[in-house]
Amino acid sequence: MIAIGIDIGGTSIKGAAVDCNGKVYETFSMPFIKGEPGVITIRKLASLVKDYISRLNLEKEVIGIGIGSPGTLNVAEGVVEYANNLGWDQLRVADIIHETLPYPVRLTNDANAAALGEAKYGAGKEYSNIIMLTLGTGVGGGIIIDGKLYEGNLGKAGELGHVVVQVDGEPCTCGRNGCLEAYASATALIRETKQAMLKNKESLLWKRCPNIDDVGAKTTFEAAKEGDKVAIELIDNYVKYLGEGILNYCNIFRPEVVVLSGGVANAGDYLFNKLNTYVRERNYGYKETPEVKILPAKLGYDSGKIGAAALFFA
Amino acid sequence: MIAIGIDIGGTSIKGAAVDCNGKVYETFSMPFIKGEPGVITIRKLASLVKDYISRLNLEKEVIGIGIGSPGTLNVAEGVVEYANNLGWDQLRVADIIHETLPYPVRLTNDANAAALGEAKYGAGKEYSNIIMLTLGTGVGGGIIIDGKLYEGNLGKAGELGHVVVQVDGEPCTCGRNGCLEAYASATALIRETKQAMLKNKESLLWKRCPNIDDVGAKTTFEAAKEGDKVAIELIDNYVKYLGEGILNYCNIFRPEVVVLSGGVANAGDYLFNKLNTYVRERNYGYKETPEVKILPAKLGYDSGKIGAAALFFA
Repeated sequence: MIAIGIDIGGTSIKGAAVDCNGKVYETFSMPFIKGEPGVITIRKLASLVKDYISRLNLEKEVIGIGIGSPGTLNVAEGVVEYANNLGWDQLRVADIIHETLPYPVRLTNDANAAALGEAKYGAGKEYSNIIMLTLGTGVGGGIIIDGKLYEGNLGKAGELGHVVVQVDGEPCTCGRNGCLEAYASATALIRETKQAMLKNKESLLWKRCPNIDDVGAKTTFEAAKEGDKVAIELIDNYVKYLGEGILNYCNIFRPEVVVLSGGVANAGDYLFNKLNTYVRERNYGYKETPEVKILPAKLGYDSGKIGAAALFFA
Repeated sequence: MIAIGIDIGGTSIKGAAVDCNGKVYETFSMPFIKGEPGVITIRKLASLVKDYISRLNLEKEVIGIGIGSPGTLNVAEGVVEYANNLGWDQLRVADIIHETLPYPVRLTNDANAAALGEAKYGAGKEYSNIIMLTLGTGVGGGIIIDGKLYEGNLGKAGELGHVVVQVDGEPCTCGRNGCLEAYASATALIRETKQAMLKNKESLLWKRCPNIDDVGAKTTFEAAKEGDKVAIELIDNYVKYLGEGILNYCNIFRPEVVVLSGGVANAGDYLFNKLNTYVRERNYGYKETPEVKILPAKLGYDSGKIGAAALFFA
């Protein structure tokens, strides 16, 4: 059994055939052209997929096309209702693909696709209750319950970055204040790092990154690993907020594992040791509350493609 | 089809036969005797249920015994692992009942039972994705997904009161700081009201309640309804925190309705109008995000019994 998994992003659209063991075949990609009408983009994509399937001789093996897309979706009808950074509005993706290809199409949120990929074939493959958080420009989330993706009412649940952990806190891109995204995204860590650098001219952070405009999440982690006090404080504060967010999801879902992906998750053991300690020490205070493991994602940039295909292997 | 629904509490244990339409038969109850070994309590309960079934001539109709209990549970094995306010530790409830009665036993958290009752036969009966919050001494929660109770890994999920909305905020009974319970429970409203009264000797709150030790959540709502400025501020602040908590659950689950029960939920339209306005104005900022209705629970103290029985009508 093979499905085509497609990951739609603001700079490119990538995909591959994936089999039900998570094996990824040759990949294909096309640039995402900003401003191009969505219907044209999807027609090009359908044509690219058609050629790909025919070139790999997979006509008889493909059982469907899974797509992960940003934005608000109507998963039942395969429609991207609104995706700000793609410029799409009420784009009937499944219908447009069906002009060219006969396979069933399943659509899900991009963070959900990545979560399903990691859950079935990556860091979560030995577990069936998984929370995934993607720590990048924003904070995305995915919920796996009993091995299945939970998409909620109308497929619109799982906005795990937009959960307030600090009422009246930092402004968030969603319009509220104090969301987890405003504290646990790479963007948030960079914001806090820049503020701390301006207050601490002697910090090693300046050596790591003489031009403050170039600060990335990596800057802070590297300086902290080298023992810089300011950087360590920044990371400890970051761990506190992320840890509280994770503890919240533990109390709501009681997952077996929490999987972290995205740029920040590349910080390695330094981050995961601190986080696991923080969460273990504060796990819900009753006897018999199961422990939760916090693990780095394993599939990297493939998780979205694999997870989109896995919509057909549930 | 009839099941026996039982609601275990720290002062009494109550139950009734309930049919699959939610019709409640004659109720039975026994006092909860603090300090009595749990095994004795459950044996008395089993004997009471046996007599009840025989008196109502229901032997052939009863399909099972559902029990809602506080504490941490092992739902798979019907064990109350630890319930601080009952003094129970590793109590094998299902096994003890089976010494006397042959019916299958299902155990769930008391807040989950209440949520399932409201979901199937009360305020949520026209909906299939429901979050229930019980606002009393603490804040309990229940999650209904596609009409079914979500109990999570090992049946230990749904601690919706123990989700931090204010990092480093008010201390919570669970050991963390800033949980929703520490702001949205009746206890929290009473705490804030007392503090405000001490600072505002001229407030109508003193007229409503000359002895500050007698303050209840009702005191604040009554004074606010009469136009007292201090009380209105207290309620608005309470609505803000509860509203943020509800918005969090909207973004995580995207429920169709949020049902509120417990003492505070009796405040009626005054509370629900403010809450619905707060949440509607801040609902996730994308087009096509479905609205959520916030409704009062309908079944009152019966919800726990009905929901416990409904574990057999899923």
